[in-house]
Amino acid sequence: MVILKVHGYIQSSAVMRIAACLNEKGLEFEFVPVDMMAGEHKKEPFLSLNPFGQIPVFEDGDLKLFESRAITRYIAHEHANKGTKLITDIPKEMAIISMWMEVETHQFDPLVSKLTYELIFKSKFLGLVTDEAAVKELKTKLAKVLDVYEARLSQSKYLAGDEFTLADLHHLPNLHYLMNTPIKEMFMSHPHFWAWCADILARPSWSNVIKMQN
Amino acid sequence: MVILKVHGYIQSSAVMRIAACLNEKGLEFEFVPVDMMAGEHKKEPFLSLNPFGQIPVFEDGDLKLFESRAITRYIAHEHANKGTKLITDIPKEMAIISMWMEVETHQFDPLVSKLTYELIFKSKFLGLVTDEAAVKELKTKLAKVLDVYEARLSQSKYLAGDEFTLADLHHLPNLHYLMNTPIKEMFMSHPHFWAWCADILARPSWSNVIKMQN
Repeated sequence: MVILKVHGYIQSSAVMRIAACLNEKGLEFEFVPVDMMAGEHKKEPFLSLNPFGQIPVFEDGDLKLFESRAITRYIAHEHANKGTKLITDIPKEMAIISMWMEVETHQFDPLVSKLTYELIFKSKFLGLVTDEAAVKELKTKLAKVLDVYEARLSQSKYLAGDEFTLADLHHLPNLHYLMNTPIKEMFMSHPHFWAWCADILARPSWSNVIKMQN
Repeated sequence: MVILKVHGYIQSSAVMRIAACLNEKGLEFEFVPVDMMAGEHKKEPFLSLNPFGQIPVFEDGDLKLFESRAITRYIAHEHANKGTKLITDIPKEMAIISMWMEVETHQFDPLVSKLTYELIFKSKFLGLVTDEAAVKELKTKLAKVLDVYEARLSQSKYLAGDEFTLADLHHLPNLHYLMNTPIKEMFMSHPHFWAWCADILARPSWSNVIKMQN
């Protein structure tokens, strides 16, 4: 039997995204730590797995993939009949899932990834000081994005409709990190967004990802 | 019969991306101009089509979509049996297409969109001056990305293998724009990348998009 492998470091949002997807599908996998501090991702043999020198990388036998959102799509399609569905075969419904996946990529992630970096990673892992002016600007932009999410989530339980899909799942790592920062108050001030956060962060699959970190 | 509609402005890379996809599929569509200078995209009724206030928006009857890469995916799946295939049903092969689509999104587009803005849009449409320091930094980063593309395209004719797919198509608008800038020299110095550019920019579907602009 082929052993699925995820290469990366365990605090990476992108690694956590893939781990959440594998957990939703009930799939076992091997985690292969990459020593980022030693620059292992910028050397061979890692560069043969991802020539851009970035984690994570996913292996399913001969298939080697990078880019976390392509990896979760692959897992969801290849294992469509296992665990949570996450996607659909109906093009018009899949279009809505894809649209909210792109929203996560282009509207949500650029802001929350930088906030996670400023508010958590800088002090916890890098010994650097938070840039408060940058945080203020990011918060202003995030407030507008959260208003759109709030309107959407007042119409449907999940981003793409009544079911939890990849579109929701992709948000989990950064939502999780920002729960331990002042950004939590912004989330709480949007009641439908807040209910959605609480719902998806309480999924057993996500608890398994957090257990993996500890 | 439902008339497909694309809302936006004709010089937009994202609009051109969707138009290229519709042309590959041999699908007629109505182009609905949005007056960006008048801020039409930040007001109703446009905000009901896209609450983020961004073009393009695509309409297929009751289905209203934003985010150009979700729109091309939808068109490719909904019209899988028309025109150029662009995608595949085989998960392991689709994973490679998706991976290179994500590479376009995360590695290529952030650099070339800024270069297109600095080298073309600023002077041509906005009466602004190019930031030469920004261009220099973007070129340094782009050189590294082009090296990875060069290695990939020395192994296969197109990004995802032997066939032209959505992964290649998504690159067309920015490649087209940068052909009229000094970035063309960077493209030419990567022979496999350059052959790929010439090949995909010569597709009849792309000529139709350019005709639409004139």
